[in-house]
Amino acid sequence: MKLDHIGIAVENFEKAIPVFELLLNANCYKKEVVESEQVETAFFKTENCKIELLQGLNQTNAISKFVNKKGPGLHHIAFEVDNIEEKITELQNKGFEFVNNVPKLGADNKKICFLHPKSMHGVLVEFCQDLNKCNNPI
Amino acid sequence: MKLDHIGIAVENFEKAIPVFELLLNANCYKKEVVESEQVETAFFKTENCKIELLQGLNQTNAISKFVNKKGPGLHHIAFEVDNIEEKITELQNKGFEFVNNVPKLGADNKKICFLHPKSMHGVLVEFCQDLNKCNNPI
Repeated sequence: MKLDHIGIAVENFEKAIPVFELLLNANCYKKEVVESEQVETAFFKTENCKIELLQGLNQTNAISKFVNKKGPGLHHIAFEVDNIEEKITELQNKGFEFVNNVPKLGADNKKICFLHPKSMHGVLVEFCQDLNKCNNPI
Repeated sequence: MKLDHIGIAVENFEKAIPVFELLLNANCYKKEVVESEQVETAFFKTENCKIELLQGLNQTNAISKFVNKKGPGLHHIAFEVDNIEEKITELQNKGFEFVNNVPKLGADNKKICFLHPKSMHGVLVEFCQDLNKCNNPI
């Protein structure tokens, strides 16, 4: 599997984006609001994967809850797959538990689903499939 | 910069290693104790980066403290650099703060250093340089 991106929960986009631009020597190339999740995202490219900063738009979304509980920091890792429905079935057959068994629309024009962190020793793992490479869009 | 690996803090290697092997469809290819840090590591390969599981050997090392405070989960991200001393100087000049200004010996035959998470919105960022590609070993 290929790592697509690392998701990082932050409290303040205006402060965090310039810090990651300085660190990575790369400009934020895209900002996008994901209305369904009530989060804002900002993307950066490294040589072999992407970094996604996430900021909650209110206090009740998953990112704000995470930041309030654990503080800002590493939130999830996301693997790119060719067929997300097949990956869900494969991993369910292996005993893994998903937060959402049915893929939903995420940022960056992707179908996404999440494994439950309790299946994964506390790690939130996302799978994503590019909608442009998908015969079965949402 | 190239992402070298993602570090994940776990409580129980015997339970966690088979779970990541199942997830990644890849065997753990190396286990290594880092005596200086009092941690044990286990490595897995994905298509474009590595996953490093970390378990504390006692209750006073950084990994056990992290797990006791925040629970198991994503611990750090590590970027590979060609010259770690140059990277430290470059980032210090940009205002970043390091946990260790002088590289130390880490797992996987690497010189490593860490940016302080407070410089990085809660993210622990490691830089690593392969000792085999290094004219200035520790």
